[in-house]
Amino acid sequence: MANKKNMKTGAELVGNEYILNGQPGKGGKEMSFSYISHLYCSACERKYSTKEKQQLCECGSPLLVAYEFDEIKGQLKPGDLVGREASLWRYHELLPVEEEKNIVSLGEGMTPLLRMPRAGQDMGIENLYMKDEGTIPTGTFKARGAAVGISKAKELGVRHLAMPTNGNAGAAWSLYAARANMKATIVMPVDAPVVTRKECVIAGAELYLVDGLISDAGKIVSKAVKEFNLYDASTLKEPYRIEGKKTMGLEIAEQFGWKVPDVILYPTGGGVGLIGIYKALIELHTLGWIGDELPRLVAVQAEGCAPIVKAWNQKKPYSEFWESSSTVAFGINVPKALGDFLVLDAINKTDGCAIAISDEELVAEQQKVATQEGAFICPEGAAVFAAARQLRENGWIKDGESVVALNTGSGVKYSDLLSCAVPILQPDEGLPFRQG
Amino acid sequence: MANKKNMKTGAELVGNEYILNGQPGKGGKEMSFSYISHLYCSACERKYSTKEKQQLCECGSPLLVAYEFDEIKGQLKPGDLVGREASLWRYHELLPVEEEKNIVSLGEGMTPLLRMPRAGQDMGIENLYMKDEGTIPTGTFKARGAAVGISKAKELGVRHLAMPTNGNAGAAWSLYAARANMKATIVMPVDAPVVTRKECVIAGAELYLVDGLISDAGKIVSKAVKEFNLYDASTLKEPYRIEGKKTMGLEIAEQFGWKVPDVILYPTGGGVGLIGIYKALIELHTLGWIGDELPRLVAVQAEGCAPIVKAWNQKKPYSEFWESSSTVAFGINVPKALGDFLVLDAINKTDGCAIAISDEELVAEQQKVATQEGAFICPEGAAVFAAARQLRENGWIKDGESVVALNTGSGVKYSDLLSCAVPILQPDEGLPFRQG
Repeated sequence: MANKKNMKTGAELVGNEYILNGQPGKGGKEMSFSYISHLYCSACERKYSTKEKQQLCECGSPLLVAYEFDEIKGQLKPGDLVGREASLWRYHELLPVEEEKNIVSLGEGMTPLLRMPRAGQDMGIENLYMKDEGTIPTGTFKARGAAVGISKAKELGVRHLAMPTNGNAGAAWSLYAARANMKATIVMPVDAPVVTRKECVIAGAELYLVDGLISDAGKIVSKAVKEFNLYDASTLKEPYRIEGKKTMGLEIAEQFGWKVPDVILYPTGGGVGLIGIYKALIELHTLGWIGDELPRLVAVQAEGCAPIVKAWNQKKPYSEFWESSSTVAFGINVPKALGDFLVLDAINKTDGCAIAISDEELVAEQQKVATQEGAFICPEGAAVFAAARQLRENGWIKDGESVVALNTGSGVKYSDLLSCAVPILQPDEGLPFRQG
Repeated sequence: MANKKNMKTGAELVGNEYILNGQPGKGGKEMSFSYISHLYCSACERKYSTKEKQQLCECGSPLLVAYEFDEIKGQLKPGDLVGREASLWRYHELLPVEEEKNIVSLGEGMTPLLRMPRAGQDMGIENLYMKDEGTIPTGTFKARGAAVGISKAKELGVRHLAMPTNGNAGAAWSLYAARANMKATIVMPVDAPVVTRKECVIAGAELYLVDGLISDAGKIVSKAVKEFNLYDASTLKEPYRIEGKKTMGLEIAEQFGWKVPDVILYPTGGGVGLIGIYKALIELHTLGWIGDELPRLVAVQAEGCAPIVKAWNQKKPYSEFWESSSTVAFGINVPKALGDFLVLDAINKTDGCAIAISDEELVAEQQKVATQEGAFICPEGAAVFAAARQLRENGWIKDGESVVALNTGSGVKYSDLLSCAVPILQPDEGLPFRQG
C-alpha cells in the first residue's frame, strides 16, 4: 500500500529522487530535511534560536530565518527537485521544519504559472504570465504561510495561537490549525468576506469580529496574547509564515527554468508575500541557482489604502498609518504594515516600484481577465493586472519584457461583490437565441 | 525565457523526460502526443471517427474513446511520467487531444491525495484518504471535464456550445470556453449555487436559469441545439468530458504507486466521474500498469435523489426518473442520468455498491471533516465520507482496507448553506477568553 506521507504526485513511490530525512546525500554526508540555522533580526544585529518559540526581536522588529547555504550548496542541485511532489514541501531543505513528521499539509503549493496571451495582447505585454494562487487549499496564497507556520508551530509545541486577519489568513490558519489539532483564536473586521468567517467557524476556531479595521483586530489580539499567554501568529510577529510565502518565489524561479522574469507584481497589504518572494530570490542567488539580475518587484496597493505607495513616492523608509482606509480589495486594506520597511527595501533593491489602483479599475480588470482568459481572479489579483496595464502604458514595463502577475486567490471567495441579472425560463420555454 | 506551454512545474525546463509530439520514442518510432483511435458506442457495435464532431450514437447511447493500447505499451512506461508537469496533461498519450497546441488549460489536475488520519480513526478506517478536487481551477472536479472537453472541441473547430448544468459544470465550461475564445450557452436551475451563475456571467457566457431541475434545463438545451445547430456539451452527449474525469482514476493509481486502494467512493449525479474512474482503471489494467484486482467502486447519492441506488438495490441495469428530487448536495440532484447503466455496470463489475445519505448526515460529516482534518469539503464530498462511515459500520468496508473518498469540490462554493453567529467586539474591547 501507499506510504504514509501526504502525496500530490506518486513520484516518490515510483523510483524518484525524493530525499528523506537522514538519507545519505551526494557527498556521502547525511542529508538534513531542513538546513535551518538561526533567526536574525531584520533591523538590528540580534540572533535567536529556532529551537524555541520566538516572536518579535527585543527591538520590536520582525525576525527572519537563516539557513546553512554552504551546506545546501554541496548537497542539493536544481535537478534534484525533478520528480519531487508538486507541493511547496519539495523545497524542504529551504524551509524551517526540521522533522518531516511535523509537516501539516493539505497539499498546498506548486500552483500553475499560466501564460495569459489574450490579456497580454490587450495590454501590450507579449510575455504576460499569471501565477495562480486560486488553486490552493483554502483558495488563497494564505495557505502557504499557514502550512509552514502551523507546521513549525507544531514542531515547537504550540497548542494555541491567536491572530488578527482580513479574513483569508484567518481562514487558512484556522483550517491548518484544525489539521494540527491546535487551537486558534481569530479576530477579523466585520467587513471581511463572510465566507472566511464560515471557514474559521467550521474549522472549530474561536472567532471574533471587530467593528473596525485589521489594525483594531491587531490591538485586540496583542492584548489577548499577553493576557492569556498565546502564540502570536500576527503578520511577521512569528518568523515562519514568511517562509511559506517565500515558496511562491521559489516556484516562479523553478517554473521559469531557474531564470527569472523581468517583473513580478504583487498585491501588497501586510507585504509578507512580496518580502517572501524577495527573500526567495536572494536565497536562490546565494545558492547560485539564479543569476545576478533579479526581477523588478512591484508593490500594488489600492488607492483607498496606499501607505507603501505614499512612502515610496516620498522616498521614505517607513510608511505612515493610512487614515480611513477603504477598498473592495479587502485583503490589501492594511493601513500600516509592520514589515513596510522590508517591502520598501525589496522594491528599492530591485529597481521596482509601488503603484495604487482605483476600485473601478480593478473591478473592470477582473472582468477582462475572466472573459479573455477564463480565470476568475480575486480583486487583489485584479489590481495587479490593472497595475501591469498602467506600467506598460507609461513605459515602465518595456517592450518584450516578461511579467508575472500574482493572483493571490480565487474570485469565488469574493463573489458577493458581483451582481448579475439572469433571465429565468419556465421548463417549457425555449431559448431566445441571441446571435453572438 | 520560459517555453510557451502552460507550466505547473518547471520540470520540462530542467532536463526531464517530458515527451513532446513528434519526438522519437523508445522503440525509435515517432511518439504520438495522443494514441486516440476511434469512438465506440457504449451500448451497440457502432464505431465513429474522432476527426469530426460527434454527439450520441445513432442508437441514442453515449460514445466512448478508444486508444491504441498496443502502441502505448511499446512506447510508454509508468516511470516516464516522473518529472512531467503536475497537471492532468501528464497523461496526454491517454487523452483525446492530438495536437498540443489545442490544449486549453488553467493548470488543472494532479490534485492532492491526503491521508485523513483523524477522520479515519473516528470512523474506524485506518487507511482513509481524500482525493481533494477542491484545489483545482474553478474549485470543482468539473474543471477536468471542461479542460479536456473544450480542448477537443477546439481541435474539432467548435465555435459555440450549449449545456445544461447543476452549476459547477456550467461555470467550468464557461471559463474554459472563454480561455478558448469559444461561445457558451448555459442553462441551470434557479436553485443552483449562486456563485456558479457569477462564474458563467463573468466569463462572458450566455446564461439562463430555469425554474426547474437539470432535467428541465436539459430539455431546453436539446431544443436549442437542434434549432441553432450548437455543439451539445451535455453530460455524455459529447465523448470527451469523460476523458477528463478519467484522469482522477489515473492520478489515484499513480499516487498509490500503481497499486490501487481497496475502495473508492464517489458522489454520483450524472455519474461521469465514476464512469471515468472505472474507464481509467480498465485502461491501466490493459496497459499492465495495475494488477487484476480493481478497487470496489461505490456510488454515493443523496436520499432525496437516489435513482442509481434504487436501481442497484433492485438489480436493474437502468435507473428510473426520480420524482420531486431534492438535496442540499445540489451537484448530485440528477433525477435520471444518461449514463446510469454505465455507473451500474462499473459498480457491479468491481463488486462495489450504491448507497444513499440523508442531508442531515452529510451536513454533520462536513463539519466533522473540517474540524478533524482542516478540510472544508463540499456537501457532495461530505456525502462520501458519511457513506464511508456507514459502510464501515455495517462491515462492507473491512478492517485494514484502504479507502479513497473523493471530495469533488471546495466547500467555499457552497458556503451560503452554512450560517454562523459570531460575537462582534468594539475596537477597545478585549477578548472574553473561553478556556479551551
